[in-house]
Amino acid sequence: MDESRACDVVVVGAGLSGLRAARDLTAVGFEVVVLEARDRVGGRSWTDTTPGGHTYDRGGQWLGTNQPRTAALAAELGVTTFPTFGAGEAVEWRAGERSTYVGLIPTSDPNAAADGVEAILDLDLAALDVPVDAPWEAHGAADLDGQTLATWLAEHVGASPARVMLDVAIKAIFGTGAEELSLLFALFYLHAGGGLSNLARTTGGAQAERFVGGSQQLAVGLAAPLGDRVVLGAPVHAITYGPSSVVVHTGGGAAAPLEIRARRAVLAMPPALSGRLAFDPPLPGRRDQLCMRMPMGSVTKVHAIYDEPFWRERGLNGQLVSDEGALSSTFDDSPSDGSDGALVGFVAGNDCRRYEAAGDKAREAAILDDLERAFGPDARCPRELVTQHWPAEPFTRGGPVAISVPGALSGFGPALREPVGPLHWAGTETATEWCGYLEGALQSGERVAAEVAESLGAQAAGEGL
Amino acid sequence: MDESRACDVVVVGAGLSGLRAARDLTAVGFEVVVLEARDRVGGRSWTDTTPGGHTYDRGGQWLGTNQPRTAALAAELGVTTFPTFGAGEAVEWRAGERSTYVGLIPTSDPNAAADGVEAILDLDLAALDVPVDAPWEAHGAADLDGQTLATWLAEHVGASPARVMLDVAIKAIFGTGAEELSLLFALFYLHAGGGLSNLARTTGGAQAERFVGGSQQLAVGLAAPLGDRVVLGAPVHAITYGPSSVVVHTGGGAAAPLEIRARRAVLAMPPALSGRLAFDPPLPGRRDQLCMRMPMGSVTKVHAIYDEPFWRERGLNGQLVSDEGALSSTFDDSPSDGSDGALVGFVAGNDCRRYEAAGDKAREAAILDDLERAFGPDARCPRELVTQHWPAEPFTRGGPVAISVPGALSGFGPALREPVGPLHWAGTETATEWCGYLEGALQSGERVAAEVAESLGAQAAGEGL
Repeated sequence: MDESRACDVVVVGAGLSGLRAARDLTAVGFEVVVLEARDRVGGRSWTDTTPGGHTYDRGGQWLGTNQPRTAALAAELGVTTFPTFGAGEAVEWRAGERSTYVGLIPTSDPNAAADGVEAILDLDLAALDVPVDAPWEAHGAADLDGQTLATWLAEHVGASPARVMLDVAIKAIFGTGAEELSLLFALFYLHAGGGLSNLARTTGGAQAERFVGGSQQLAVGLAAPLGDRVVLGAPVHAITYGPSSVVVHTGGGAAAPLEIRARRAVLAMPPALSGRLAFDPPLPGRRDQLCMRMPMGSVTKVHAIYDEPFWRERGLNGQLVSDEGALSSTFDDSPSDGSDGALVGFVAGNDCRRYEAAGDKAREAAILDDLERAFGPDARCPRELVTQHWPAEPFTRGGPVAISVPGALSGFGPALREPVGPLHWAGTETATEWCGYLEGALQSGERVAAEVAESLGAQAAGEGL
Repeated sequence: MDESRACDVVVVGAGLSGLRAARDLTAVGFEVVVLEARDRVGGRSWTDTTPGGHTYDRGGQWLGTNQPRTAALAAELGVTTFPTFGAGEAVEWRAGERSTYVGLIPTSDPNAAADGVEAILDLDLAALDVPVDAPWEAHGAADLDGQTLATWLAEHVGASPARVMLDVAIKAIFGTGAEELSLLFALFYLHAGGGLSNLARTTGGAQAERFVGGSQQLAVGLAAPLGDRVVLGAPVHAITYGPSSVVVHTGGGAAAPLEIRARRAVLAMPPALSGRLAFDPPLPGRRDQLCMRMPMGSVTKVHAIYDEPFWRERGLNGQLVSDEGALSSTFDDSPSDGSDGALVGFVAGNDCRRYEAAGDKAREAAILDDLERAFGPDARCPRELVTQHWPAEPFTRGGPVAISVPGALSGFGPALREPVGPLHWAGTETATEWCGYLEGALQSGERVAAEVAESLGAQAAGEGL
């Protein structure tokens, strides 16, 4: 017989959204249990230390400008931040040639730079017309959702060098190419994060700051006061629910099988994963089919660790944009105390898939080639090289975020946040501000906690299990 | 303790593909167990009888011209077929006006008809260039896969009456609109089924014939000689596998929990559903992420049953194409013995989603309006009206078929059939002939059986569990 517990709200997933919801609900007096499949909290926020002692983030790692919830949480928890290193020139590798540039836009081809900037401005302007809380109500939503971002780019920049530059940014942001992204979804996402230029930027943008000691401290800090309300090693596989009650079953993890009875459940995970749980009764068609239409992006995150950030002495800021090889982009990832030097890079979209098929050795060889090409021969010999292949990660299965494929938002959009009986939906994918970012996770946790508290408040006192 | 059984091959799913594989493997001497979640065989082939005694197919129901496997199986099992009724005029409802026409193409607007035919010919011609066994190797595959069919249509026929006509056909064929379909996938699908005109056609096409007594008899006939090798009420939820062994776990169904050990497993279900099982070790990223990118179409199948096929006397063949209301298309579905009259219709794509949200009553009211508009006031009063809403069906979750979203085939295509260790993939979605049809299911069953037999033959004798 499984161990059985009862509470007001069971939260499935101890990422930032689930933990934030649990904290808010606990604060107003509800009994909460948080079930986490992994042996750690944080979800896509995951700080690790190499055998050589270098601490790094396997998942989300940046604090962007204008991310008030994340900044406030870090301040509250005493997690300090520091600016992402950006002084000096970035490297552009395009069509087999290396050049360097300053700022956001590679400039080896001035026409391409101008075309690229114009496309970014056009996209950012169009994004402002897409309501972040209901993209499906945008003017011309069906048309925007019936095409890919690649179609838009083909019309506006063609097969130009500007397209190459934009593709690098898109792959880095979404973990997949423009060919997979609904144009409506892409515009929503850009709007929610302040625009493409903002999302691609370090200084003043989404990659402005880093956390001393890593981003997972935010989740750990949220979880600590929750104490044994957070149960690790407890993968949920089945959920039975009625109009205002729910029973959640775990099993197959480190913890003994649990049966949690509650008045509400918060599913704090990407839609593709919540759709994989066994619901009784089955989810409504629209919710289930939405889950089928929000696949995870494909990204392998790479950390190359050196004794020192030697590129800085060469006037380089550690940033690379490349149209060849495995790594399409890199950033300086050295710790704030100067104890060593590090680069973080992304193998994204079709590159991520291609190098998974080719195998770990082929990927590592390509990465070293990429690093040498960009930063010089010593870049070929990192002290340590770590790869985090998110599509293989069992309880995330991709990254950095779920995308919406064409037709999904216009056909199913309202099902993204609409509760199903006692089931409420959280996760950065449900955010209307900074969807896909730590900030979005926190916003979704706040929103779902308020939603659940209101529905429980509306329920007659004394009613319940 | 679960009941434990051992065999050579465990087949998950007793639809036509799984049963065909089981039969072929049994025939060459392998011990097979087939696990089926439902209390019946057939999967998307499901024949039922109304309280009033009318027998009808809730799922796939037609035998197309040039579907040799299906025709041979029916003949072998003594299941007779008869031509779909097509004599007389079809009804077109467009822009609020009713007209009638003969043949495949609505003719109320001759220019639209000409434009529509030209688009169909262009698509069918382009489809011939997409290799059915490797669409990702088509010339320009990345470009074709980076856009939707809606983008192609917008370029080739604009927002014209021809587009309205094509949209009806596309919704009927795919269960979703052109806005969701990768152009590459759509071309592959058309090629695999002999072209759009073929797929839309009754006489000489995909809807040419019907089975006396319903299509499920094919599955029942395949299952009968397998005897207790087929276990009903046994939903699989977890699969553990090594290089050449697999353990499949069932539970939560009518049958007692089972643990089946085998040398190979055949997963005979749509990719979106196989991706929901708990695999240990987790599936490779590419396979898992492909499963996220092949959502099920959205279709509600409707049967309206009358005392007699009164429309025939009015010179109508029971076919409707409509741009308004719930039903976008209908066909005459009366039994061959003339015992009563019936129409079958489809609420597809966004209509299917919209009317799920509106509720059963609103959908039924819209359907009756549609029928009256098309076939006259007596069509408003069927003796019985049955709706089968496939997105809510737990072990299918949509229909008629899984589609591939933009980027899926070019990014992940080979993972569609590539075995993962001892795991092999079947189902009509893996077919290269008549993908999405009964014929495709049978072809995939044949293919996977040969694949498994070869891999087991190649394995050293005596090796095994």
